[in-house]
Amino acid sequence: MRFVIIGGDAAGMSAASRAKRLRPDMEITVLEQTRDVSYSACGMPYNIADPERDMERLVVRKAEVFIEKNKINLLTGHRVTAIDRSAKTVSGITAPGEPFSYDYDKLFIATGASPVVPGLPGFDLPQVMVLKSLGQGKQIKTYIEQHKVKKAVIIGMGYIALEMCEAFEKRGVKTSMVKPGPVFLPWLTQDLADVIYEEITQMGIDIHLGHVIQKIEAFNTGVRVICEDLTLDADLVLVASGIKPCSEIAKTAGLDLGISDAIAVDRFLKTSDTDIYAAGDCADAYHIVTGQKCWIPLALRANRAGWAVADSICGIPTSLPGVAGTSVFKVFSLEVARSGLNFKEALDSGFTPVENFVQTRSRAHGHPGSNPIYINMVADSKTGRLLGVQMLGKEGVAHRVNSIAVALHCNMTVKDFSQTDLAYAPPFGPVWDPLLTAVIQLAKKI
Amino acid sequence: MRFVIIGGDAAGMSAASRAKRLRPDMEITVLEQTRDVSYSACGMPYNIADPERDMERLVVRKAEVFIEKNKINLLTGHRVTAIDRSAKTVSGITAPGEPFSYDYDKLFIATGASPVVPGLPGFDLPQVMVLKSLGQGKQIKTYIEQHKVKKAVIIGMGYIALEMCEAFEKRGVKTSMVKPGPVFLPWLTQDLADVIYEEITQMGIDIHLGHVIQKIEAFNTGVRVICEDLTLDADLVLVASGIKPCSEIAKTAGLDLGISDAIAVDRFLKTSDTDIYAAGDCADAYHIVTGQKCWIPLALRANRAGWAVADSICGIPTSLPGVAGTSVFKVFSLEVARSGLNFKEALDSGFTPVENFVQTRSRAHGHPGSNPIYINMVADSKTGRLLGVQMLGKEGVAHRVNSIAVALHCNMTVKDFSQTDLAYAPPFGPVWDPLLTAVIQLAKKI
Repeated sequence: MRFVIIGGDAAGMSAASRAKRLRPDMEITVLEQTRDVSYSACGMPYNIADPERDMERLVVRKAEVFIEKNKINLLTGHRVTAIDRSAKTVSGITAPGEPFSYDYDKLFIATGASPVVPGLPGFDLPQVMVLKSLGQGKQIKTYIEQHKVKKAVIIGMGYIALEMCEAFEKRGVKTSMVKPGPVFLPWLTQDLADVIYEEITQMGIDIHLGHVIQKIEAFNTGVRVICEDLTLDADLVLVASGIKPCSEIAKTAGLDLGISDAIAVDRFLKTSDTDIYAAGDCADAYHIVTGQKCWIPLALRANRAGWAVADSICGIPTSLPGVAGTSVFKVFSLEVARSGLNFKEALDSGFTPVENFVQTRSRAHGHPGSNPIYINMVADSKTGRLLGVQMLGKEGVAHRVNSIAVALHCNMTVKDFSQTDLAYAPPFGPVWDPLLTAVIQLAKKI
Repeated sequence: MRFVIIGGDAAGMSAASRAKRLRPDMEITVLEQTRDVSYSACGMPYNIADPERDMERLVVRKAEVFIEKNKINLLTGHRVTAIDRSAKTVSGITAPGEPFSYDYDKLFIATGASPVVPGLPGFDLPQVMVLKSLGQGKQIKTYIEQHKVKKAVIIGMGYIALEMCEAFEKRGVKTSMVKPGPVFLPWLTQDLADVIYEEITQMGIDIHLGHVIQKIEAFNTGVRVICEDLTLDADLVLVASGIKPCSEIAKTAGLDLGISDAIAVDRFLKTSDTDIYAAGDCADAYHIVTGQKCWIPLALRANRAGWAVADSICGIPTSLPGVAGTSVFKVFSLEVARSGLNFKEALDSGFTPVENFVQTRSRAHGHPGSNPIYINMVADSKTGRLLGVQMLGKEGVAHRVNSIAVALHCNMTVKDFSQTDLAYAPPFGPVWDPLLTAVIQLAKKI
């Protein structure tokens, strides 16, 4: 059995390691276009923020370990450019420019996602960067240090943009954020987005909403981001205005694409070709709340799906129940988390949603150090089913959200959840946990 | 409708407030033996630890508010001594010694629990105290300050004992803990108990296991706790060797008692008398994992059950699904939490349990400030059903445990839980959440 994997990050290396553990005799080839495999992509903003930490610390396991210890045929600098499904061959070109070709019995596409970069003038200037690969992370960190960056502009305001504005601030870089859309964090309810907006602007970050970027121009040693009615000077520009699935080779090979042009896969992570699997940021998934396809690229899913693909290929057919879209990020002193659907997503998915916003506390009545926790919760008014939550606060948010994720996996109603026996001690929350307060208030609207 | 409530703490005042909200015309009488109602009992150790904070800050709502704003006939200093079920009357004596009597249509016994104090010589000395009522908390705090307490002995090693040893340490009081049993925290698995033992002893607390206390004697201005082979001098002794339900008046009135002599109630919190409800620390409950009766006195349940009783009495019959026994406490830098059954409880409940211990991390690979998280998880090997968890660590424990509580409410299997979509960001945990690592390892044993 020749198992070929395109992409050596979370999904790809999880699959390779697991397959090798299950079937030590299997011939496993991983083709990775960059020089790096198995690194913590999500850790890059925190690492960039800290001049004392080497970027190499983000590498979870080195390529040599996979090659020497795990006996995986891991080939870095190998960019796959084509899949020949009838010949069951993948081919491409190495970093030094040599062509290569590999036959497969089973193929796993784990090509991930890549930053969306507008095709506008100046986005190819050397001061304009993106953050996805470890090499790109190193480039940003080195550039800050070598060019003594004082001013940065971030194009986009997603969670990578927010994490990076904190990283820049920690490096003493004055940062502006700009995007064409008029709404800050549109996926969050207004009450919650306002808290983050306030936090970020208080930290000295300038936020410019509703400005369509026209071009970037070189200016002195830096650049100038030019919008119709706004010009922002910077030593460095980070383009963080979204990512897209790397599904081109799959498309060219005639595989079905799904939502957001992600590779369409079934619950077994199988593509429209029975010998080809896809998972991680390049593939779609079923949403556990809607039962419909979605594209929510997140690290846990990539790792989990990599395992599942390996299991299936090794003779243990493994399907995944789907994703809840549970995520958390930190921006300055705030923890921001979500799981499931927001109001609009619920509406678009055919539910009859009702939502409620509450402000509660992170610690018990009379306990010092308490901070506000803000929660927006969504349920279906017809069935009472819990559909999702968004929450934020300075503490007690990141792990609390998981209770809702579990509840969503179990199709709990707000009434059921309101009866859950959650932990209480004064340093960690009120007697009525913030989630219970939220769900009880929401239940009144149903 | 005359609704009489015995006891004005969590369960009693929750019921009174809710009933008044639902039925403003209802004649509600609360008979409370102490001077205090509606205070945060669980907050007392933290308040005692802090000389700057007034104990009154623990009062959530003052008696006057209930009386004047909510129009509840709240009578403090009223100790009920008898229930006449045929006459539907409760009677007792006030603090100044006046007899009283009230007729009821519906009665709610919310008498709580009281500390177990051994009937041994010297336990009535003024330096020997317990911590349950706000008055007792004030007494301890005042005594520490007025008598410049330097040495304390705590009899017992439950979670109140542990919280109080931290409070004493923060007040500069050298503290010893002693108990007859040979095992430190027997409800925890050894690996976890060892971590707490280490933490406490490192903070300078002396732990004496396996010493049967014979008596306490006055000694200079303090006392001497005397065991057969150990003598401990102290300025103050705290007896924290467990609590028992205050069910005597219920028993005398002929109501059924259940496990641990708690008042037996059905899922509607109704006792063996159709006009009498009981809830909070004085009553038993159904366990959501075993489906059997249990006595796990905790604050959230008391509040929730108070609401449910009020709902039922106001014409909205309300049953409760039961408790998971989810709890958390802080001891020095550690968060210690549990939910569901431990191995022995699972065995005793007729399951065929399997358990597994893992040590994971509180933050992602390469992220600074990471701390160990220790988890012991229990499942039924026949069905794969998740039965319980115990966990501890310096961060990321208190709220994580709630995910397991929710899973227990939903009868999830370890396999189901292993597929839950939990949140990930480097500052808050590894890609594979500690609970996922624990459950995946446990699944391998099934």
